[in-house]
Amino acid sequence: MYSFKNDYAEGAHPRILDKLVETNYVQQMGYGEDEYTMEAKERLRQKIHNPDAAIYFVSGGTQTNLLVISSLLRPHEAAISAKTGHIYANETGAIEATGHRVITVETSDGKLTPTDVENILQEYALRPHVVKSKLVYISNSTEIGTIYTRLEIESLSTYCQSKDLYLFMDGARLGHALTAEHNDLTLSDISQYTDVFYIGGTKNGALLGEAIIFNKARLAADFDYMLKQKGALLAKGRLLGIQFLELFRNDLYFTLAKHANEMAMKIANAMEAQDYPFLTPPHTNQIFPILPKTVMNELMRQYDFYEWKTIDEQRSAVRIITSWATDENKVDAFIDSLKRITS
Amino acid sequence: MYSFKNDYAEGAHPRILDKLVETNYVQQMGYGEDEYTMEAKERLRQKIHNPDAAIYFVSGGTQTNLLVISSLLRPHEAAISAKTGHIYANETGAIEATGHRVITVETSDGKLTPTDVENILQEYALRPHVVKSKLVYISNSTEIGTIYTRLEIESLSTYCQSKDLYLFMDGARLGHALTAEHNDLTLSDISQYTDVFYIGGTKNGALLGEAIIFNKARLAADFDYMLKQKGALLAKGRLLGIQFLELFRNDLYFTLAKHANEMAMKIANAMEAQDYPFLTPPHTNQIFPILPKTVMNELMRQYDFYEWKTIDEQRSAVRIITSWATDENKVDAFIDSLKRITS
Amino acid sequence: MYSFKNDYAEGAHPRILDKLVETNYVQQMGYGEDEYTMEAKERLRQKIHNPDAAIYFVSGGTQTNLLVISSLLRPHEAAISAKTGHIYANETGAIEATGHRVITVETSDGKLTPTDVENILQEYALRPHVVKSKLVYISNSTEIGTIYTRLEIESLSTYCQSKDLYLFMDGARLGHALTAEHNDLTLSDISQYTDVFYIGGTKNGALLGEAIIFNKARLAADFDYMLKQKGALLAKGRLLGIQFLELFRNDLYFTLAKHANEMAMKIANAMEAQDYPFLTPPHTNQIFPILPKTVMNELMRQYDFYEWKTIDEQRSAVRIITSWATDENKVDAFIDSLKRITS
Amino acid sequence: MYSFKNDYAEGAHPRILDKLVETNYVQQMGYGEDEYTMEAKERLRQKIHNPDAAIYFVSGGTQTNLLVISSLLRPHEAAISAKTGHIYANETGAIEATGHRVITVETSDGKLTPTDVENILQEYALRPHVVKSKLVYISNSTEIGTIYTRLEIESLSTYCQSKDLYLFMDGARLGHALTAEHNDLTLSDISQYTDVFYIGGTKNGALLGEAIIFNKARLAADFDYMLKQKGALLAKGRLLGIQFLELFRNDLYFTLAKHANEMAMKIANAMEAQDYPFLTPPHTNQIFPILPKTVMNELMRQYDFYEWKTIDEQRSAVRIITSWATDENKVDAFIDSLKRITS
Repeated sequence: MYSFKNDYAEGAHPRILDKLVETNYVQQMGYGEDEYTMEAKERLRQKIHNPDAAIYFVSGGTQTNLLVISSLLRPHEAAISAKTGHIYANETGAIEATGHRVITVETSDGKLTPTDVENILQEYALRPHVVKSKLVYISNSTEIGTIYTRLEIESLSTYCQSKDLYLFMDGARLGHALTAEHNDLTLSDISQYTDVFYIGGTKNGALLGEAIIFNKARLAADFDYMLKQKGALLAKGRLLGIQFLELFRNDLYFTLAKHANEMAMKIANAMEAQDYPFLTPPHTNQIFPILPKTVMNELMRQYDFYEWKTIDEQRSAVRIITSWATDENKVDAFIDSLKRITS
Repeated sequence: MYSFKNDYAEGAHPRILDKLVETNYVQQMGYGEDEYTMEAKERLRQKIHNPDAAIYFVSGGTQTNLLVISSLLRPHEAAISAKTGHIYANETGAIEATGHRVITVETSDGKLTPTDVENILQEYALRPHVVKSKLVYISNSTEIGTIYTRLEIESLSTYCQSKDLYLFMDGARLGHALTAEHNDLTLSDISQYTDVFYIGGTKNGALLGEAIIFNKARLAADFDYMLKQKGALLAKGRLLGIQFLELFRNDLYFTLAKHANEMAMKIANAMEAQDYPFLTPPHTNQIFPILPKTVMNELMRQYDFYEWKTIDEQRSAVRIITSWATDENKVDAFIDSLKRITS
Repeated sequence: MYSFKNDYAEGAHPRILDKLVETNYVQQMGYGEDEYTMEAKERLRQKIHNPDAAIYFVSGGTQTNLLVISSLLRPHEAAISAKTGHIYANETGAIEATGHRVITVETSDGKLTPTDVENILQEYALRPHVVKSKLVYISNSTEIGTIYTRLEIESLSTYCQSKDLYLFMDGARLGHALTAEHNDLTLSDISQYTDVFYIGGTKNGALLGEAIIFNKARLAADFDYMLKQKGALLAKGRLLGIQFLELFRNDLYFTLAKHANEMAMKIANAMEAQDYPFLTPPHTNQIFPILPKTVMNELMRQYDFYEWKTIDEQRSAVRIITSWATDENKVDAFIDSLKRITS
Repeated sequence: MYSFKNDYAEGAHPRILDKLVETNYVQQMGYGEDEYTMEAKERLRQKIHNPDAAIYFVSGGTQTNLLVISSLLRPHEAAISAKTGHIYANETGAIEATGHRVITVETSDGKLTPTDVENILQEYALRPHVVKSKLVYISNSTEIGTIYTRLEIESLSTYCQSKDLYLFMDGARLGHALTAEHNDLTLSDISQYTDVFYIGGTKNGALLGEAIIFNKARLAADFDYMLKQKGALLAKGRLLGIQFLELFRNDLYFTLAKHANEMAMKIANAMEAQDYPFLTPPHTNQIFPILPKTVMNELMRQYDFYEWKTIDEQRSAVRIITSWATDENKVDAFIDSLKRITS
């Protein structure tokens, strides 16, 4: 059974493992004070064209989200998220566990607009009987595979600034967003338009690791304490530094994400060729085709993937995820199976 | 400069790296449901002779401590620790951040006795105006290099049961404790006498990783939710599973700890030969000799280690730590330097 | 301007003030160990026909809700509430501030059904990536003036037991619910069907005070510590005990609530006589008639009440609240004004 | 049995009860927006000579402490307190429950000095592995009856400002401190030297109530949300406003405290006349004479008071507390008993 269930089924890109082996016996400072981490941060600052950014590496996305949000908010402040947002849908109440409400917005595409946020501000007006909205959380690519345009991010950014709201982008799959065919955003844009964002390594070729980037360093004041307090400061911080160093050497990060997207698009095209619709437009490495259940079940005999949502008695939307490690031969075989089943 | 500052200055034991490379492209389930993790848990259950233990792998010691303690305590309950305990002295208030007081006991050797705990219970008697003591936290080896005897653990265990207190052992350096020359404790004893303990990988040859062991599985009820909520559930759980699988293949874990201890004892013996006293008796890979400041300063020109505590105008206690990776040649050179300086 | 804005615009029923004056110089134990508190608890246990109930008095509803919920839930557990529920809509994230998500259900009448809860359980199935539902929070009367029938509570209770969920009833306006014309619930029923509920004093004639009743005493284990820790344990607990003693002497509590309901029904009948519809059926002391804005504005020149919700360009729902202290002459005058305006 | 156990054994000063009765039917806004509260705040601003102070009334001291401290601190920040401080010794971990460590200092007199604080800052230097000290908590009068001089407060204030630490004074018994015989502090001094302090009503003649005073209004930003979130915002805020209005009409507050002090001094003098020493010098309404156990036991047959601490086999320190309501006849009778027993 080949798996299209997620983008973390394999280990790490070989260049990362090679580098771990190569540097293994070099003694380094602990807790992220090592040379690899320093160099990786410097490289990222150059990539985003923001020499003043404050950067931290941590081990996963939930950890990132709870650290950033609990660090920025006072006790009575809340985050606004799409209902499909990872912090609301997939993190076991991690944000609430730090004391903050996540206010949700129903969306069709997993993206937030200034109007969405404005509606929340109006709904939460009766001070002090309601929480105070203070941070807007968005994901790019989203949890349902969609991406933001430059214009969308810019307008959200402008709106947030006008309302004194932080804009925080979850980039667990940022590589996939930025290498999507119709994308017009750059790392540099994101650094300009958001207050904080992160670049996900775990889902794009690292063993583990996310790079948190505070575009305004003052927002990171005392963030080192937070890392330690929440159990996120690895003794061997080199493990994270080395990985980001490799991921951003010769743009490996984008090469890997592009591969994942291409594999997904190949499958998406095959689905479209069979006239199967999609729950959300396929842009990145997560696609949600709507298949006859008979087809879905037949494919599931050979391939692992999730049934995402029942559409009607005959059809379900499924989720197919590709990754940096997806084998093109397997993709071709999957497409062949699809054709065979539907012919 | 060779470093004796800590036991996490290098990467991981080569057998771990080899296994990561070897298994890299095998697709696995995420979030600790992979085969390596399953197998590693099974191996640990055998090692501790407790087939019913509930085991979880996480990335670091602070994370472990906050997870275990916040999972076991209700809001008004507190943990008791030596004042030198890692949860009080080195974790940025991680336990308090989950809502619980850490009640401290002054000790000379970093170890708790039933009498210490009894004194706290008496001090905290005026219900409901004080917190309720509910968990006793001990470290083995301790943060100042000492170890518990079997009798000490047994009596503490008996006392804790009689008072309905959980006994939790921080085993960040458990390998070093169990391979110390005068140790009479086994993994199996620890599983029998404590409610929860953990086996530290980070400080004994892993890239990262601690194995949390609930000796009574019912105490781990819903612990999986906690892991996710606190950001401790790695998507690629295989990274932890593989490491513990290797560490406990042919007792590599104990071999590594023994090496660290031997290197430390070699240095300790050389110190003793010069009639230098110790802050605490040297048993494990952390030793605290008291040196003339002139000697300390001279050594520091070639070697990295911490000045731990000023003793008087002429002398300081220093902390020297060895590890699985400590090079015996460097140890010998260090001893030579010491002899040269003091001759 | 006479106010129909809320049910806490005046002080306390005179019998309460008399008793405070009468007992003022009697020395009593502090922190709720006084004789009045003891006696009031005993009286309530008799009223609910549950001699084993554990009872605590606190100063307000938000305090009650956060105490009860944070005491009963473990860190990963959540409460389910109607979206109009006070814990979600009006308490500044008090529950989330204790670390727990409030999962909401959209309802038309502010009430939860077993089906509502079942839907949430199904939505939150992907353990451990989602919070665990553990407590169902309902209000009676609800925040929009509706009440539960005996059958509704019974079926919800049965369902909750089958799913190992706590059922908690917010009774800030319980008196108004139990004295509503069509009510068929008794205090005794509520004690039987819920795990915890509270009887609100603040909104029914007390200066402040809510009586928290754990129908199963074991659920209140160590609740005294919680009270103190959250700042809810009044030094002069007598202030609460005396009030509940008076409120439940000769059923004053129900007499007061009945008066409030009757005043509201008088207004509701007058509204109905003018063919004005209601947002929710008028049963208790909170009614939500839908008025032409011209009528609303005219009435607002003489009376204080809230515009609740815009219905369309011409009409708004308003909220009119009566209380134990509402002056019938003012109600008659209000009705006269209404008739005059609409004639 | 007459009680000298605490200063909250009776109800409230009659002028307070009279005012509650007098204003009972005047309709007022809820949640502290009533006219009495507004007027009481204005009166306090005048008393402290600080027209810009931000003032809030809440129901008790633990509530005050947890509100102020959790509002001012970020997650990694800690409060420093004497080990006898109420927040450490008597509040069931209320501060830790909001996520913050209370760092303690052993003292003989319950008071903190700049040197005490400096020592803590040096002990907690290893950023980011330790919490960050950010607030100094002091009580005046202290929990063991001592008071601060103007010079002591001034030097502590200067030190705190130099280290960017907040200075917060717990004034649960501030009246007793300011009316002590050797006191040289004024309300106005305290407003000048502290960042926040509170004026306790509960222990000086109110039914309940403490006035929180932020001397710099910006430190109170969004404090109204905090009040609501922690369950501290009373619907009938008038109850608190009316009490402080009366307590600060014609300086009733100080008259009451002075009476309490005088009664305590009368007893202290009688003790001294018998050559009994004191645990701490008797200055305010809490005194700690050291009595032969035979004398203590004999007195306890007629009077309620606490045995505070065993001194040796023959002697114990006891705690005797007087209040605004202490009957001078009872004091005289107590002194007579003392003389009789010891003659």
